[in-house]
Amino acid sequence: MMHPSCPVLNDPDVLREIRQMSDHYEQALGQNRLPELDALFHDGPETVRYGVGENLYGSEEIREFRRNRTGGSPERQVLRRVINAIGKDTATVDLEFRRAGSDRIARQSQTWFRTPEGWKIIAAHVSLMGTTS
Amino acid sequence: MMHPSCPVLNDPDVLREIRQMSDHYEQALGQNRLPELDALFHDGPETVRYGVGENLYGSEEIREFRRNRTGGSPERQVLRRVINAIGKDTATVDLEFRRAGSDRIARQSQTWFRTPEGWKIIAAHVSLMGTTS
Repeated sequence: MMHPSCPVLNDPDVLREIRQMSDHYEQALGQNRLPELDALFHDGPETVRYGVGENLYGSEEIREFRRNRTGGSPERQVLRRVINAIGKDTATVDLEFRRAGSDRIARQSQTWFRTPEGWKIIAAHVSLMGTTS
Repeated sequence: MMHPSCPVLNDPDVLREIRQMSDHYEQALGQNRLPELDALFHDGPETVRYGVGENLYGSEEIREFRRNRTGGSPERQVLRRVINAIGKDTATVDLEFRRAGSDRIARQSQTWFRTPEGWKIIAAHVSLMGTTS
């Protein structure tokens, strides 16, 4: 089925908004500001977050995981970031990072969408790169 | 900035379409049908695919990786799948799977969007779950 208006990629205004959201996320993560991190995820059972060592379904499980994570996320340096805006209301953020004291490359993928309360993450996936595929 | 029409989650028609796309992807992957897999990814420099052991940027790198992967993706069993439709033209697919002969849980996340040539993946992330977060 053809849809009348397929989304156009990488509208500059949306890219600018998402760049800010991603920067904001990094800062909140680095400073372990839990309420801000929680608020950046869609508050509902739909949200999925695959972390390095856990698979979380729904914003309740995500909040619970954060509350139980002593010291928060390890300090990290972003090495490369790609943002794609899909139409006016959705975007993906993919980035490579390295944790302080580690040689391993890690990756984070997020899908954001626009809500009346601002941009929210509905799906996130964080992993360490393995040595085989 | 408020946007006039924020996307509504999980329109049943979109969910149905994406369920079919995801099933189709699994079949093409299982049978290592490379042209079909290539065709399910957005053909452009924007596409990102983080695999278990590689970070690929742009459809060229993704095709090249597949061509060089002897025997294709290992056989796998999907354990749990969550699909979220975001408005009419974007969707996420997150699933857990286990490779034949492995005890480790793996995860795959995809973001799809509607194009004049059908639904395409613009971002994908596959990883093995680690033992620590």
